[in-house]
Amino acid sequence: MSTNLPETADDPTAPAPETPADIPRLDVHALNSDSSALARKFDGMVSEETIERIVFESYTTLHRSARVKTHLAALAKHFAEDRIRALAVARGAIEATVPQVLFVDTLNTGRSQIASALLTHYAGGNVEVRSAGTSPGHEVHPQVYEAMDARGVALIRAFPKPLTDDVVRVSDYVVLLGDVDEPPRYEGKEYLTWDVAAAKDASVDEVRAIVDDLDSRVRALWAEIEPADEQTEATAPSPA
Amino acid sequence: MSTNLPETADDPTAPAPETPADIPRLDVHALNSDSSALARKFDGMVSEETIERIVFESYTTLHRSARVKTHLAALAKHFAEDRIRALAVARGAIEATVPQVLFVDTLNTGRSQIASALLTHYAGGNVEVRSAGTSPGHEVHPQVYEAMDARGVALIRAFPKPLTDDVVRVSDYVVLLGDVDEPPRYEGKEYLTWDVAAAKDASVDEVRAIVDDLDSRVRALWAEIEPADEQTEATAPSPA
Repeated sequence: MSTNLPETADDPTAPAPETPADIPRLDVHALNSDSSALARKFDGMVSEETIERIVFESYTTLHRSARVKTHLAALAKHFAEDRIRALAVARGAIEATVPQVLFVDTLNTGRSQIASALLTHYAGGNVEVRSAGTSPGHEVHPQVYEAMDARGVALIRAFPKPLTDDVVRVSDYVVLLGDVDEPPRYEGKEYLTWDVAAAKDASVDEVRAIVDDLDSRVRALWAEIEPADEQTEATAPSPA
Repeated sequence: MSTNLPETADDPTAPAPETPADIPRLDVHALNSDSSALARKFDGMVSEETIERIVFESYTTLHRSARVKTHLAALAKHFAEDRIRALAVARGAIEATVPQVLFVDTLNTGRSQIASALLTHYAGGNVEVRSAGTSPGHEVHPQVYEAMDARGVALIRAFPKPLTDDVVRVSDYVVLLGDVDEPPRYEGKEYLTWDVAAAKDASVDEVRAIVDDLDSRVRALWAEIEPADEQTEATAPSPA
């Protein structure tokens, strides 16, 4: 295809003058390298072709919503890996030994991040927790970090992510926060709806109240869904 | 995983009372059937696993942004098929005999839809045209339909779609409309930036002016990128 485009200023198709150095180039090499590493990790579970697609599409979709583009390749790799693992677990290629819980709200910048961090805090490795937004915002609200910090609960690798099919598919429990515009439901999953205020535009004190509200909901949820063998293990007599 | 959740009203984790009939169920059967049909169509080009993922993720991502959810499964199938074809062409599994052009703006509800329809109108089957938005809106603006109707150019199967990696990857030309927050660029493609007003909140007269502006830009672009063999075919003497 010849690309002999006009460069004259009065031609409407002429590209605007631009310094090549100003325009970020897609680091195809890094994304291909991430894909290869994940293909080795999930060998025999998800094909290399599918993994490559998930890596590049995860990067593209995060780039569309993220405000800060630095470290985006690293975040995209984490997002892609979580999606690939979700697929592998959903298919039974990796055995799910703990409940799979997904928190969904609109922005994935406040409520769903708080709930996710709290459940991880209480349940530790006895649950796999994910969160997503139907219309992901640009970044996690600073007040959310402040309020969680005050409570001593870390927000680890928290960034807004779009709701994808793979993370819904793997979930045993899907918790919908606020009046989120949720996708049609899969059969065989437990859907819960929590009426919780939004952290967006809330003061630090208001966010603390939201954290308190979510804290009691999360603890009650965990008391219900904690696998029975975990609950009884400590008290059950050892097998002879 | 046992799901013995409490149903009492004072328990914060109790699901809100809901009529099961009110809650749409995901039509897994229809999406699986679409996946199978597309896997047969692209047999040997893109794997069935990857196709199934693209179908389900296309549905999920359109559902997140579409206002009207009826016909969404049909639109998602078209979107998925276009993405799968883009992948197959980008890999050379399908030979690209015509230039591949992508129009990108923020919403994919106005400018990029107009430009896409105009180029298809002028170039017919001698080009493959796609459009996408970095933050897709809910629906194509009604004034856009009106203005294009007045010009006798059809908007066929026009719906807002998110920018994905596959449709960028296949493109020879990526035309960025307005101050779109574009993703990092691939090497080896021609990127153009057109400073065109947004159709959002514009009157029908204003949209007509936008259509006029895009019309001259699109015709000039097509005059430049039209493959040489198409341009000369009509006047070149027949081979002896």
